[in-house]
Amino acid sequence: MTKVFEEMAALDRLIHEPARLSILTALSACKRADFIFLQRLTGLTVGNLSGHLSKLEEAGLIRTEKQFVAKRPNTITELTNNGREAIENHWNHLEALHKDAREWKLDQ
Amino acid sequence: MTKVFEEMAALDRLIHEPARLSILTALSACKRADFIFLQRLTGLTVGNLSGHLSKLEEAGLIRTEKQFVAKRPNTITELTNNGREAIENHWNHLEALHKDAREWKLDQ
Repeated sequence: MTKVFEEMAALDRLIHEPARLSILTALSACKRADFIFLQRLTGLTVGNLSGHLSKLEEAGLIRTEKQFVAKRPNTITELTNNGREAIENHWNHLEALHKDAREWKLDQ
Repeated sequence: MTKVFEEMAALDRLIHEPARLSILTALSACKRADFIFLQRLTGLTVGNLSGHLSKLEEAGLIRTEKQFVAKRPNTITELTNNGREAIENHWNHLEALHKDAREWKLDQ
């Protein structure tokens, strides 16, 4: 059991941060999402959501594309292959931690 | 689905921080754990583990007790009732987020 706990303590904070975990998880369930959709989903302010998307894009986890919808700018966001792999690994890791602790409890 | 994502973005960072999530999850699986055990489990340094335990104790999530084992000081740690409830709620929340995203994906 030790290993998964040890790795957890060194978990990737870029992905683990609550708002970013939420954004990446949402994107893992759809091909593409626009800014307004992500904003409504997470309840984040425009500034906060922009900041999180920039960090995720700089890390190569998502790619964004600016479009104009009814003459208004809109940002379309999707996971990169690296991003998809990273969020899947992250959830696998969280689930392994939780599962190990539960099994450990049953053993006692 | 929206609500769980929205709540996620405002998730309790005190608990969500990887090392503290790891410590609280370990404590949720056992009645009490000593400092050396938690240190081996998480791979944290003495300083880091002490810091995290202090924060968790200040927040009322754990209680600690100093003991002497073979003339050496040792800190025994256990969850408070609030701490047990908080870590259970946190995992329920994480699992709800992941589950919702998976179901959403199947619906598409």
